[in-house]
Amino acid sequence: MAHRTLKGFRDFLPAEKAARDLVRDRVSRTFERFGFQPLETPTLEYAELIMGKYGEDADRLVYTFEDRGGRRVALPYDQTVPTARVLSQYRSTLPRYFRRYAIRNVFRAESPQRGRYREFTQCDIDIYGSTSTVAEAEIVACAWQAVRDVGFDRVEVRLNDRGLLVGRLTPFATDAVDVFSIVRSIDKLDKLPERGVVDELVGKGLTPAAAADALAAIRDATPTDSLAALLEQARALGVADGDLVFTPVLARGLDYYTGAIFEIVVPEFGAGSVAGGGRYDDLIEQLGGPPTPAVGLAFGFDRLVEAAVERGLVPGRAAAATVLVTLDDDSVETSLRAAAVLRRAGVAVEVYPAPDKPGRQFRHAEEQAIPLVVVPGRADDAGEVSLRRTDRTAQASVTLAALPDAVREMLESAG
Amino acid sequence: MAHRTLKGFRDFLPAEKAARDLVRDRVSRTFERFGFQPLETPTLEYAELIMGKYGEDADRLVYTFEDRGGRRVALPYDQTVPTARVLSQYRSTLPRYFRRYAIRNVFRAESPQRGRYREFTQCDIDIYGSTSTVAEAEIVACAWQAVRDVGFDRVEVRLNDRGLLVGRLTPFATDAVDVFSIVRSIDKLDKLPERGVVDELVGKGLTPAAAADALAAIRDATPTDSLAALLEQARALGVADGDLVFTPVLARGLDYYTGAIFEIVVPEFGAGSVAGGGRYDDLIEQLGGPPTPAVGLAFGFDRLVEAAVERGLVPGRAAAATVLVTLDDDSVETSLRAAAVLRRAGVAVEVYPAPDKPGRQFRHAEEQAIPLVVVPGRADDAGEVSLRRTDRTAQASVTLAALPDAVREMLESAG
Repeated sequence: MAHRTLKGFRDFLPAEKAARDLVRDRVSRTFERFGFQPLETPTLEYAELIMGKYGEDADRLVYTFEDRGGRRVALPYDQTVPTARVLSQYRSTLPRYFRRYAIRNVFRAESPQRGRYREFTQCDIDIYGSTSTVAEAEIVACAWQAVRDVGFDRVEVRLNDRGLLVGRLTPFATDAVDVFSIVRSIDKLDKLPERGVVDELVGKGLTPAAAADALAAIRDATPTDSLAALLEQARALGVADGDLVFTPVLARGLDYYTGAIFEIVVPEFGAGSVAGGGRYDDLIEQLGGPPTPAVGLAFGFDRLVEAAVERGLVPGRAAAATVLVTLDDDSVETSLRAAAVLRRAGVAVEVYPAPDKPGRQFRHAEEQAIPLVVVPGRADDAGEVSLRRTDRTAQASVTLAALPDAVREMLESAG
Repeated sequence: MAHRTLKGFRDFLPAEKAARDLVRDRVSRTFERFGFQPLETPTLEYAELIMGKYGEDADRLVYTFEDRGGRRVALPYDQTVPTARVLSQYRSTLPRYFRRYAIRNVFRAESPQRGRYREFTQCDIDIYGSTSTVAEAEIVACAWQAVRDVGFDRVEVRLNDRGLLVGRLTPFATDAVDVFSIVRSIDKLDKLPERGVVDELVGKGLTPAAAADALAAIRDATPTDSLAALLEQARALGVADGDLVFTPVLARGLDYYTGAIFEIVVPEFGAGSVAGGGRYDDLIEQLGGPPTPAVGLAFGFDRLVEAAVERGLVPGRAAAATVLVTLDDDSVETSLRAAAVLRRAGVAVEVYPAPDKPGRQFRHAEEQAIPLVVVPGRADDAGEVSLRRTDRTAQASVTLAALPDAVREMLESAG
């Protein structure tokens, strides 16, 4: 019974964990090239910090309990609330403009279903303290570049402005249907056909004509001045022009966004957006932090990894090592010296951990997807070892000194 | 009240977090060069998995609670118990010899005190499935190399064998003082003077002569055959001869070790060992896993980071970026283009996120320890920008194309 993971929780075995680490390392490097600094907050917080921030539905998903000292504590539900605490707690030492990235697991007691987990990784970049479109452009450019650096060729950034949505749709609001309700329906345009959205609006109480006009008003919209500035600045920061797509129907909920909103889509990956964000100038204060304008973006880390594995951008199968050094009773020392020579040259080497039949050792290399095998020579071989391809299509006799080069050559000739 | 961290828990602000990430990346790279594969287990487990494994004292330190579905769950107390579960749960798919590394936070409700935290990072390497001294030598060599790769010049590995301790000390055991009690006193020789250990043994019931003889029996011990083989193999794997120190008084508690035991000390760092481990062939089964011989080592990750920061092996202060690009209202686009050129060349750049007074922007660079500043030229400067040292000791006018080289030169000339 205890010998399994809890529902909604996951083990990451080596292949999957290696893929996740690789994606994490790639995006972190990009974040740092954009001047974002890493931040880590604890896995337990006072419950009163976590609770009551996103409404009752969210509160029901928080893991909370009383610790042994009688304190109500909680696992983090997101990264924004703990960051609001950090902005408040270290107010006097943090820079006026603070750009940070944070990658950590958060916890929500959701009903487990395909693709939804109770522990999952959030990966956020945010700039605090600036109301400028430059901060928005930096977020957009950094996120675009990060997804490119994971390896995707085409990365589409969809952009919109909350003010534009509210401005264009307010004329259609009625006593029965407020503007936010209209926005929430418009937001479904990426999932529903236009007809379905019109029907929903009519169901809410708009006339069919008003519903159609509301849609048309959004479809015909042009970027606001600040959105135009953001687009131009993102281009200057290196984002390919064709990858920036003004998307007037994009709404992203609207719950707490106050200005620009954006979403990142990898067109070759079907499962929707891999990141989303926007400007949220009021939220940090609402969460109990100091009044702080903010713009940021959160990656769906699981999705990003899934897309990268699917496209072959990260190995779907972890090779423990490039070379397996085999052992036989008579030449353990030669084997170990061979391993040391290769590792010193930066080659990842597994030493088979006990002398055994050659067939069994080769099978281990096959099963672990280790492409090359070193078999130690006999004592009278003047220290030469045999380097072989695990699939047995090539072999060479080499001295220890020549081993690193021979490994490189054999790997390259494999194409 | 909620605007602070719980006692015993920590925020890692950028400087500290960057140092931790750097140490993690360095040791991970070494682990992978030694063929260790990454594994990650969840932050919540069934409580019955975690409880009852290390005795009542340990159980009292476990964070456990009932989740919203009425399940008793617990935060991990260590990494060995979840790994025992993994070895059992994925038995049919894991290789017969499995070498994994795992770096994650674990949780213990200890009384907080200096240097002891309720959430801390464990960093483990283990080889499962082999009883061979080669597996032990691989662990020793990998750990030695990992600490070297963090940047320490001298890394001492102290080794002993549980069998040697028990064998040498059993003759001194009496009905009142069993051999483990004697071992526990001997284990204090690194903290107490010899006199103190003798006194303690006498207090336990040995005669003064027997106590002195027991100490002498240990001090004069020579390595067992298997320890001699391990030492020779570790040398063949590249560990410097002088760094391998047979230490017959080393006991490491003995709780679950069954053979070789080792401890890694960085002599230039005073605070004791940075890693410890040994062979534990019975533990995985005792923890509920399949019968699995094992040898491994755990790094005190916090200590390793502390030692690295103290020795200047990782920057104690995180520079967000190498270059701050400043903004003024008339040339935002030039600034952003400069940032893009530098980032494309791999330089970490922060763009000041809003046009502002030059003095304020320079102050931000100073406070953030960013060494260089780019100031955009005027519109008629033919796209040249001014590259300056933040300390104002150098400056140059350069085209955008020449900017990456100019940055490199100015950094190098700083010495």
